[in-house]
Amino acid sequence: MSDALPTLSQIQDAAARIAPFATLTPVLRNASLDDMVGAQLYFKCENLQRGGAFKFRGACNAVWSLTDDEARCGVVTHSSGNHGNALAMAAATRGIAAHVVVPEGAVRAKLEAIERAGAILHRCAPTTAAREAKAAEVQRATGAILVHPYADTRVMAGQGTTVLELLKQSGELDGIVTPIGGGGLMAGCAIAAHGALPSIVMIGAEPSGASDAAQSLAQSARIEHFSPDTVCDGLRTLIGVTNLDALREHRVQVITVTDEETIAAMKLLWQTLKVVVEVSSATVLAAVLKQREQFAGRRIGLVLTGGNVDVDALPW
Amino acid sequence: MSDALPTLSQIQDAAARIAPFATLTPVLRNASLDDMVGAQLYFKCENLQRGGAFKFRGACNAVWSLTDDEARCGVVTHSSGNHGNALAMAAATRGIAAHVVVPEGAVRAKLEAIERAGAILHRCAPTTAAREAKAAEVQRATGAILVHPYADTRVMAGQGTTVLELLKQSGELDGIVTPIGGGGLMAGCAIAAHGALPSIVMIGAEPSGASDAAQSLAQSARIEHFSPDTVCDGLRTLIGVTNLDALREHRVQVITVTDEETIAAMKLLWQTLKVVVEVSSATVLAAVLKQREQFAGRRIGLVLTGGNVDVDALPW
Repeated sequence: MSDALPTLSQIQDAAARIAPFATLTPVLRNASLDDMVGAQLYFKCENLQRGGAFKFRGACNAVWSLTDDEARCGVVTHSSGNHGNALAMAAATRGIAAHVVVPEGAVRAKLEAIERAGAILHRCAPTTAAREAKAAEVQRATGAILVHPYADTRVMAGQGTTVLELLKQSGELDGIVTPIGGGGLMAGCAIAAHGALPSIVMIGAEPSGASDAAQSLAQSARIEHFSPDTVCDGLRTLIGVTNLDALREHRVQVITVTDEETIAAMKLLWQTLKVVVEVSSATVLAAVLKQREQFAGRRIGLVLTGGNVDVDALPW
Repeated sequence: MSDALPTLSQIQDAAARIAPFATLTPVLRNASLDDMVGAQLYFKCENLQRGGAFKFRGACNAVWSLTDDEARCGVVTHSSGNHGNALAMAAATRGIAAHVVVPEGAVRAKLEAIERAGAILHRCAPTTAAREAKAAEVQRATGAILVHPYADTRVMAGQGTTVLELLKQSGELDGIVTPIGGGGLMAGCAIAAHGALPSIVMIGAEPSGASDAAQSLAQSARIEHFSPDTVCDGLRTLIGVTNLDALREHRVQVITVTDEETIAAMKLLWQTLKVVVEVSSATVLAAVLKQREQFAGRRIGLVLTGGNVDVDALPW
């Protein structure tokens, strides 16, 4: 596996590779939310993607990039939920095994979905180090191929297809906002966006309790250790090394938002846009509302990354 | 105003009349829900319609059917929420006044939306008789034109545009399920569906605590008095006289569902389809799950009628 950044042409190849399996998700508009921000907002609904999150794009591209020989012993990953579910579903489309290492504290609905999709679960402590150690152990024991959730060229290329699709649906945009966890989505999206339209401004939304990307950019050095403290279960990971390079190269601006701001934005998306998004996804609207002067009068794409929520345990 | 059933050509005219104002709502598919029912389900997402409900279609067609002279004193209606909101928004597109008579017990989020849309609220008791008396009073006092929520040709024609759109998006269907309250949606949809494809089976979903349509069909006589007892706030109305004729003429099958079944289906739509629907909308999935043998192997359209929910007061 390589964690080199993908090229535009690798992202275009990924779009063709996943097309038979992935959902062409709709882009929603909403007059009330446009009025609140004073901008034209285009919501790319990856919560409506197969498996309920954009992660299916990267996982599916990785699984179908393997040779038959590589695919023989299956795939393995570590994931707080959505990537694990996506890899399990992608592996099922090719009829191969999937092993998923899950940290304690993951959302119940996500773990159940991974099991329903037919993967074998392996539990570990909720730290990046523990996740990677456990995944390496499973890899050695089974011969499965590692599909890292974000530090993987094939995964980043798959995630970047989100923006190729969005731009076809929305027409030209001035800016695109995605959440930042491990940075795979942003890396793929920035490369795709600037390949199509070099002037697009890329904005990352990060929880203030997991703002390692914002801090790494500010200090010009990657933070290596941090203890995430945020309700956004999908964004508790450390940004990948090459993913951080991509953020620098594509001049990504990171806006940090508090959990309180994110939960308010999540409620607004449910109540006004009428879609079920998980809390991590709501960081993008929270960021746009927080810096609304910057977005006034612009055409802005917002990637709603997932909708895997336990509706019996809402954060409000 | 007339409550005669609309013709297919009036529904086609309505589609052209509302096109500049209404949202072309997406049709969603979901593999898990297909598996649960054993059928191919096409969810027409009117919860994503302007104002959060299909009602905008009928209200918009009614408002733009008026001559300038008729429109001068504005429009009036009675509504538990969605039609009132829709009429207020439609009136705003033409710059005329909207008066909305609302029964006690209406959902707070819906009343707030009506006021935000610029309508004047008039309160009354939660019975069909009280609603109609109060609306007549406002009509006399203001000269506003009555736009009845369902017993109105223009409104039924507008609601019927839902099915014209759905069939363009889904291709041929074996059956279409809509909730039944006053029956305006079903009347318009049945006429549109059978105009396009005479073999389509039309199925109404009705709460067992407001099953006046099912009982009226069974007894071959319209029930005139009933006390609705259901959590489905949008379906507490008595079916209209000509709307009931339409149900007979189009051989509509009515499936009644308990509130418990509807709430379970609502949760399933949120958790699996990832869309916010209000409880009345979930009757359609509850009906299909209840009679799944009937739907096995078929291509079924389900109209998700609205998404105006108070997310702080969920029914589970």
